[in-house]
Amino acid sequence: MEWFIEKYNGLALMIQIKKRLVKKESKFQKIEIYNTTDFGKMLVLDGKIQLTERDEAFYHEMLVHVPMFSHKNPKKILVIGGGDGASVREVIKHNPDEIFLVEIDRDVIELSKKYLKVDKGALDDKRTKIIIEDGYNFLKETKEKFDVIIVDGTDPNRYSERIIKHEFYRICNKKCEIFATQSQSPFQQKDYFISMIKEIKKSFDFFKPYIGFVPSYPSGLWSYIIAKYVELDLEVLKKRFNERDVKTCYYKPELHVACFELPRWLEELSKSSYQLR
Amino acid sequence: MEWFIEKYNGLALMIQIKKRLVKKESKFQKIEIYNTTDFGKMLVLDGKIQLTERDEAFYHEMLVHVPMFSHKNPKKILVIGGGDGASVREVIKHNPDEIFLVEIDRDVIELSKKYLKVDKGALDDKRTKIIIEDGYNFLKETKEKFDVIIVDGTDPNRYSERIIKHEFYRICNKKCEIFATQSQSPFQQKDYFISMIKEIKKSFDFFKPYIGFVPSYPSGLWSYIIAKYVELDLEVLKKRFNERDVKTCYYKPELHVACFELPRWLEELSKSSYQLR
Repeated sequence: MEWFIEKYNGLALMIQIKKRLVKKESKFQKIEIYNTTDFGKMLVLDGKIQLTERDEAFYHEMLVHVPMFSHKNPKKILVIGGGDGASVREVIKHNPDEIFLVEIDRDVIELSKKYLKVDKGALDDKRTKIIIEDGYNFLKETKEKFDVIIVDGTDPNRYSERIIKHEFYRICNKKCEIFATQSQSPFQQKDYFISMIKEIKKSFDFFKPYIGFVPSYPSGLWSYIIAKYVELDLEVLKKRFNERDVKTCYYKPELHVACFELPRWLEELSKSSYQLR
Repeated sequence: MEWFIEKYNGLALMIQIKKRLVKKESKFQKIEIYNTTDFGKMLVLDGKIQLTERDEAFYHEMLVHVPMFSHKNPKKILVIGGGDGASVREVIKHNPDEIFLVEIDRDVIELSKKYLKVDKGALDDKRTKIIIEDGYNFLKETKEKFDVIIVDGTDPNRYSERIIKHEFYRICNKKCEIFATQSQSPFQQKDYFISMIKEIKKSFDFFKPYIGFVPSYPSGLWSYIIAKYVELDLEVLKKRFNERDVKTCYYKPELHVACFELPRWLEELSKSSYQLR
């Protein structure tokens, strides 16, 4: 049996693979899809695990439902990145009118639809508008405004680095009511997390990091940042959760509140990050 | 550079090592201590990572402070396993009168004191009584009763399996006011977690699983179970935390409450486990 290995400094994760299904050099990155023994199908971009069937919902539900349930009536949504369609799948559970998916790499969408199917049809939903473009360019040019903007970005690379800078966040701030992004592992990718906190602090008056478990990501400890507004009233969240009748495997209203209680070291890391400007 | 690899089914963790400091076959197990590039010193028993300097406090603080702060005045404590002394170090922060450390393997204690020093002197504290014995035998024979019993056990093996059975838990129930144990990774060691829940359910009227991040353990998602009683009133916990003046790097009273909010799949796994008897 072979093993896929992803290293990040002195820590590495190995996932046993049965078979490689896809290997393609797209215009932007190396795309691989594997069948694994324990994690179902797995998408890898430039050597970094993007999702596995077994735990992708842990990630996508926390990325999407925390901002979506923080909004009282989210009807027009922008997802940047996330060409696999799993974030759009979670957004659709809130019954929005329109979802814009802006993904730079058409091949990620096509190969995900063909091999992964984690979108569960969401990419073909009539409310989903797929735009193949750089997220920064799209947002700068568009006249649209959104209830919620969600950034489902990859690990930092020369394409994604434009969507982790304050110039980008400043435009997001103008064009949405609630903003959320993934922000890597504060344990194993501390510098990247600190840099995102600083950039977001420059652009939003209010923001708050939160965390969740994603075993197939570095260290298993993953972070997200919500900005502009967050709803933390448990009774309001429970009511919305029931009214929208959203089915989940990880998210629940109680966890929506609990995920903002960071371990002390991480709370201090976040604070010291945004105090340094 | 070499890598230490720990496999659990189709997932493995690799930690880069600088040097092996210790390799010894004790009467009970193979003991190794490494110097690593990113995780400081690391203790390995029978090929399983027991602790790394970098994240051991995440584990020990959640194992110890949740039961200790649930007790209004914990003065007499029993720790079973945990020969490295880190659990005793956390217990001592509550200023107890007596701590009994019952560890089966004298070599773990001696080598930890010599090479790891994570006990920070706690193993030499005059209030610490070290007893080299099997935890089950000790507890069956002793006339002592304890405010809190904490089981800091290893991965299941022929020695530790006696302290994860209901006969053992039944004796614990008689001899303490609050009981807590680590219960492995419910994500990657699901069968073991389910079996512990079932055994604990047979012996305690009340119990509650909780979770925390430990990046050097399988999947990063770790679980614990507290039984007999848990304090979840945040104001009470904050008061005790301040009065006892405990310094932590992971635990905080807010997290003591939040760590009981399990992801939905885990909440359902726990419920279905204890419904099956």
